[in-house]
Amino acid sequence: MTGPVKMVELWRGGLLESWHVGHAAVWSADAGLIEHWGEPETVIFPRSSCKMLQALPLLESGAGEGLSSERLALACASHQGSERHTRQVGRWLSELGLGEGDLRCGAHMPADVAERDRLVRAHEAPCQLHNNCSGKHAGFLMLSQRLKAGPEYVEIDHPVQRAVRAAFEEVTGEESPGFGIDGCSAPNFATTVAGLARAMAFFAAASAGGGARERAAARLVEAMIAHPDLVAGEGRACTELMRAMRGRAAIKTGAEAVFVAIVPEKRLGIALKIVDGATRASEAAIAALLVRHGMLDAGHPATLKRLNAVQSNWRGIETGIIRKAEGFA
Amino acid sequence: MTGPVKMVELWRGGLLESWHVGHAAVWSADAGLIEHWGEPETVIFPRSSCKMLQALPLLESGAGEGLSSERLALACASHQGSERHTRQVGRWLSELGLGEGDLRCGAHMPADVAERDRLVRAHEAPCQLHNNCSGKHAGFLMLSQRLKAGPEYVEIDHPVQRAVRAAFEEVTGEESPGFGIDGCSAPNFATTVAGLARAMAFFAAASAGGGARERAAARLVEAMIAHPDLVAGEGRACTELMRAMRGRAAIKTGAEAVFVAIVPEKRLGIALKIVDGATRASEAAIAALLVRHGMLDAGHPATLKRLNAVQSNWRGIETGIIRKAEGFA
Repeated sequence: MTGPVKMVELWRGGLLESWHVGHAAVWSADAGLIEHWGEPETVIFPRSSCKMLQALPLLESGAGEGLSSERLALACASHQGSERHTRQVGRWLSELGLGEGDLRCGAHMPADVAERDRLVRAHEAPCQLHNNCSGKHAGFLMLSQRLKAGPEYVEIDHPVQRAVRAAFEEVTGEESPGFGIDGCSAPNFATTVAGLARAMAFFAAASAGGGARERAAARLVEAMIAHPDLVAGEGRACTELMRAMRGRAAIKTGAEAVFVAIVPEKRLGIALKIVDGATRASEAAIAALLVRHGMLDAGHPATLKRLNAVQSNWRGIETGIIRKAEGFA
Repeated sequence: MTGPVKMVELWRGGLLESWHVGHAAVWSADAGLIEHWGEPETVIFPRSSCKMLQALPLLESGAGEGLSSERLALACASHQGSERHTRQVGRWLSELGLGEGDLRCGAHMPADVAERDRLVRAHEAPCQLHNNCSGKHAGFLMLSQRLKAGPEYVEIDHPVQRAVRAAFEEVTGEESPGFGIDGCSAPNFATTVAGLARAMAFFAAASAGGGARERAAARLVEAMIAHPDLVAGEGRACTELMRAMRGRAAIKTGAEAVFVAIVPEKRLGIALKIVDGATRASEAAIAALLVRHGMLDAGHPATLKRLNAVQSNWRGIETGIIRKAEGFA
């Protein structure tokens, strides 16, 4: 037990101002846990980083058989509620004969600036379609229809969540020690950092010619890689870093500083958690691990926005830099 | 050297999800360092938590002699750019024969929702008056006039910043090991956590009948305590916790999770830094220290918003709680 290790530092005026510690694991579908920092056996909530796991039953059940890759990407997304995101989720619900009121994710102001400004100017409140998880919830509703289950699909004993838990535990290879309620009201099952990396390695190695679960995983990875803009949105780490890797990996952020990566060409899964929950640090750390594994160019603008990231103030004056800590990645 | 200690935890679904470590010091004007957690000798940037230190030369020089307590509170403020804040800073500048263009703090969107929405609806960009530091900068400009110095008052060798550094070093009792450029472009001098607590104890013990520096300090503390709404704004920790303490202490936040408190009735100064820079943790930690020292009621709504703070999601469902770590405060 060494505790978490220093991963990311903020320097200002030549002095270390702030720093972040965390745990990370790299899992090979062939060789198991091949690298780690900190304690990979630490139990964490994956939060939104495991949305592709939560989407497995949608496909495995056959409910999502004919879904477009756009909708599969949205099912795995923490989107920012731009008009493009909300319109597509709205249409999906309407094709199911459902509406915004059937969602159980709650409403919040979208992160997308254009849509937020439109709402403010129209004196309009955000709706549940704006919730960053609305695509995942549309997927839950579609599965719920197939299962002929009741409308409260986020309850822990609902058939949708029972199916999610079963898939989650099988793919992480661990019995989940518990669950929390997520920001979107869905249960979020706990696992270890290593378990989450193992699940990502399963996705990385999943073959389109395999069994139902493998085929489901392969389609979800393909959809995420095909639509980086739907998985998050303009300016966001998932979108920009996936674009920078040009289809070579799928990555996904989660609240409280979780980040995962799926690297099909190397059959690798990566998972990390910054213990303090800071997104700036989880973004820098996943970038460092992707650079280390030859997936991301350290000099790419999308990388440099997060790693060796020069900080500047309101007058454009350089004030500091976010760096990888020595000894990490 | 024990390193920083665990101060604040976020629990979800019965599991520890995230946690924050930090350093804290409590300094008595009479007995010196009386309590500490972590390493009080850690060098930090106080950021905005030291604005009352940066305002000392304004009063000591005589430049700010006739200033109202409102303007002194604004000089110590990280305000949120509401109409009330910007109007008062604008009038102050205009009485100096200056304008918004003389500021060197840069512009950013105000945190105040009403003013931000007004700007969005008017398709108007924020100006430098909206910068949370505009009151501090108005004070710098007033001092600069008195010193007959040039317009670039944020440069490190400018007479204003030389005066700030001298006051800062004398009151912290330490030669500053360096400086960084703050978000508002002003130099921010480094000191130790203990040095910052010592400075706050100087403010706590300063007498209106003392020398020029003590009188200046006493007036600034009085102004902060008299105007919690000007020091920050509605909904903010400084404002709400100062109101909850009903004039018994002045407190001030700084970026990257610094927080200080000035407790005149006990002649105590408190300073803390959360190493990862998370504001939710610095707010919880200062609340815990103020409760410990009998200044703040643990059951007050303003306290419970930050410490033993129940977290709920977009549908109002309880998801977790922010707590003090065992062994701290």
